[in-house]
Amino acid sequence: MLSEFSLIERFFARRASAPLSNGAARAPRAALGIGDDCALIVPPPGQQLAISTDMLVEGRHFFADVDPHALGHKALAVNLSDLAAMGAAPHAFTLALALPSADERWLAAFSDGLFALAERFGCELIGGDTTSGPLNICITVFGDVPPNAALRRDAARPGDDIWVSGTLGDARAGLGLLRDEWHVADEALAARCKRALERPEPRVGLGLALRGVAHAALDISDGLAGDLMHILKRSNARAIVDADAVPISDALASLPEGVRRSCALAGGDDYELCFTAPAETRGTVEGLAERENVRVTRIGTIEAIGSVAHAPSIAWRDRNGAPLSLTLQGFDHFHAD
Amino acid sequence: MLSEFSLIERFFARRASAPLSNGAARAPRAALGIGDDCALIVPPPGQQLAISTDMLVEGRHFFADVDPHALGHKALAVNLSDLAAMGAAPHAFTLALALPSADERWLAAFSDGLFALAERFGCELIGGDTTSGPLNICITVFGDVPPNAALRRDAARPGDDIWVSGTLGDARAGLGLLRDEWHVADEALAARCKRALERPEPRVGLGLALRGVAHAALDISDGLAGDLMHILKRSNARAIVDADAVPISDALASLPEGVRRSCALAGGDDYELCFTAPAETRGTVEGLAERENVRVTRIGTIEAIGSVAHAPSIAWRDRNGAPLSLTLQGFDHFHAD
Repeated sequence: MLSEFSLIERFFARRASAPLSNGAARAPRAALGIGDDCALIVPPPGQQLAISTDMLVEGRHFFADVDPHALGHKALAVNLSDLAAMGAAPHAFTLALALPSADERWLAAFSDGLFALAERFGCELIGGDTTSGPLNICITVFGDVPPNAALRRDAARPGDDIWVSGTLGDARAGLGLLRDEWHVADEALAARCKRALERPEPRVGLGLALRGVAHAALDISDGLAGDLMHILKRSNARAIVDADAVPISDALASLPEGVRRSCALAGGDDYELCFTAPAETRGTVEGLAERENVRVTRIGTIEAIGSVAHAPSIAWRDRNGAPLSLTLQGFDHFHAD
Repeated sequence: MLSEFSLIERFFARRASAPLSNGAARAPRAALGIGDDCALIVPPPGQQLAISTDMLVEGRHFFADVDPHALGHKALAVNLSDLAAMGAAPHAFTLALALPSADERWLAAFSDGLFALAERFGCELIGGDTTSGPLNICITVFGDVPPNAALRRDAARPGDDIWVSGTLGDARAGLGLLRDEWHVADEALAARCKRALERPEPRVGLGLALRGVAHAALDISDGLAGDLMHILKRSNARAIVDADAVPISDALASLPEGVRRSCALAGGDDYELCFTAPAETRGTVEGLAERENVRVTRIGTIEAIGSVAHAPSIAWRDRNGAPLSLTLQGFDHFHAD
C-alpha cells in the first residue's frame, strides 16, 4: 500500500490546508497542523474546550459495501453531533484511520465526503494517523463553549419539557431495509430512510442556539429510550413521554405499527437532539428552531423522583394519556452487543 | 459481551476519577469528564494545546499474544512520546477501543498498564468510546506548551548538533528476537530488548527540559534514518551523522555487525528523542539530561543545503569520518507497508 506519509499527504494534508470552498481565506485555529509530532491549537481566551471521540468499525457501524463518500460524511457527523449536543462550536478534528489496503478511489471518495462536511462547519483537520489493519475510523473532535453554557446530561430539572429535533426512527428503518427486515413500497420513502442512516445531519446550529435556553441535552445515537435514560440517571429524574407525540417521517409512517414504534422509540443512529427546557421557554425554543430551520417537537415532561418511582425511569403514555407498556430492550441500532 | 456502558464504568471511568496512587488529591483539568457527550477541559490561560493521536492495530503494532499490561502501557506511551517530542506537558487523554470480546482479565491488565503510566505523568482519562470489532486502540493525548516554546520539526538550523536520547535499536532487536530473526545467548540481554519493544519510556521530562534550548525535535518511532529525514525536509537542511556514535546497548552490541547497525539506524519503536541544538548549548544539554537522568549522545551536525547536496539528505560517516554507504530502506519496525 501507499506509505503512511504519501497517504496523508495525498488525501488529507493538502486538503486540510486548501482554501475554503466558498473562496474565503482560511483563518486556521491551528498554530501548527499536520506533519509534526503534535498539532498545536490556540484555545480562545475564556472558552472551554469540548472534546469527543468516536470509533467506527466495519460490520458494527457500517457495512463493508457502504458508499465511502457517505462513510466520510458519517464518521465526522457523529462527532459533530456530540459537539451539537453539548452546545459547542466545532473548530477542529483529528483522524486516525486503519485501512486494509490503500484503494485510491475509495480514499478519494471518503476524503471528499469527510471534507465536504468539515468545510461546511469550518472544522479543520489538524492531525492524524494512518495504518494498515481492519477498516477502523477514529475521529476526535474539538469545539468551544463558554463556561457554564454547555448543555450537560445532568442538568434536567422537574417541570422541564422534553423536546426532540427532526424525526426519529428513519435511520433504523433504513438499516432494516438494507437487511431485508421489512420493505417500503415507495422508493423515494425507502431512499429517505437509507439516507438518514448513511448521511445524518449534525444539529450544530440548533445546539448552539439552545445555549442558555435548554437545560440538558444529548444526541440520540442509541435510540430515544436508552439515550433519554442517560439524562434521567445523571439528573436523578423521571420522564413522562407521550409515545404518540414522538415525531416520525412519512416514510416511517408507512411501516407497520410495531416496526414504526420500535424504530421511533428505540432505533439508533438518528443523531437528532433530545433536550429539556423550562416550560416558560416554549416560545423561545420554537422560535430558535424556526430560525435554524429544524423541526422540534415536545414529547414529554421531566418529573422529580417521588414516592411512585424510586429510580430514574420513563413512563410511556399514549396520546390519550393512558399508560403504555413497551418492550424496547434489545432493539439495537446495528449489531446487538 | 459487556455493554459499552458497563465496560467503560468498570474498567475506565471509576479509575479515571480515583485518587492518585500517591494519595494526593486529584486536581482535575477536566471541568467535565467521562459520561457526557463531550469532555470539557479548561485550557490554562496563555498556553497552547498540543494534540496527538495514534492508532495501534494487532499484527501491525503488536502481536495478538502481547501481555495486555504492556499493551496498555505502550498505547499511552507512544502518545506521551509525541508530547515529549514537542516539549509539551501531558495533562489528559481520550481512549477509543475496539475489542473482539470483553475478556475481563485482559481488560483488567490492559487498564492497569494504561493507568499506571497515566498516573505517573498526571495524565487524566477524560473520555472515550468502546465498541466491538477487531482489536484497535486509538488514544488522543493533550498537553500544554507556552507559545513559541514547542520543539518543532522545522526548527533545525545549520551548525546545530544532532542529539539522541537513550540507546537506539533495542526495540527492533527485541522484535527480531520474538520473530526468530536472530538470537541473543544472554537471557538478561534478550529480556532487555523485548522490554524496550513492549514498554517504551516516553521522554517527557527531557522534552520539557529542552524547551528554550533545543531547536528541532521528534521521537524516533520509525527509525533514526527515516525520522531524522522528517526534520531535514521540514527544516530544508542536511545532516552529517557519525553512525558509530549512535549509542547502543550492551544487548544490541552482542548481535552481529549488520543487524546491530540496521537496528540502531533504522529500527523503529524506540521512542527516544532526536533533537538539534546550537553547539554553544552542549554543556547545558548535558546538564539537563543528567538532571533528568537520561543519557544523551551527540551523533552529528546540521548543515545548510549547499552546492554538494541540493536536497535534504543524511551523509553517514564512520568514526574516522570516512563516508559510509548504507542501505537501510525497507528495514521497517513491524510489517513493511
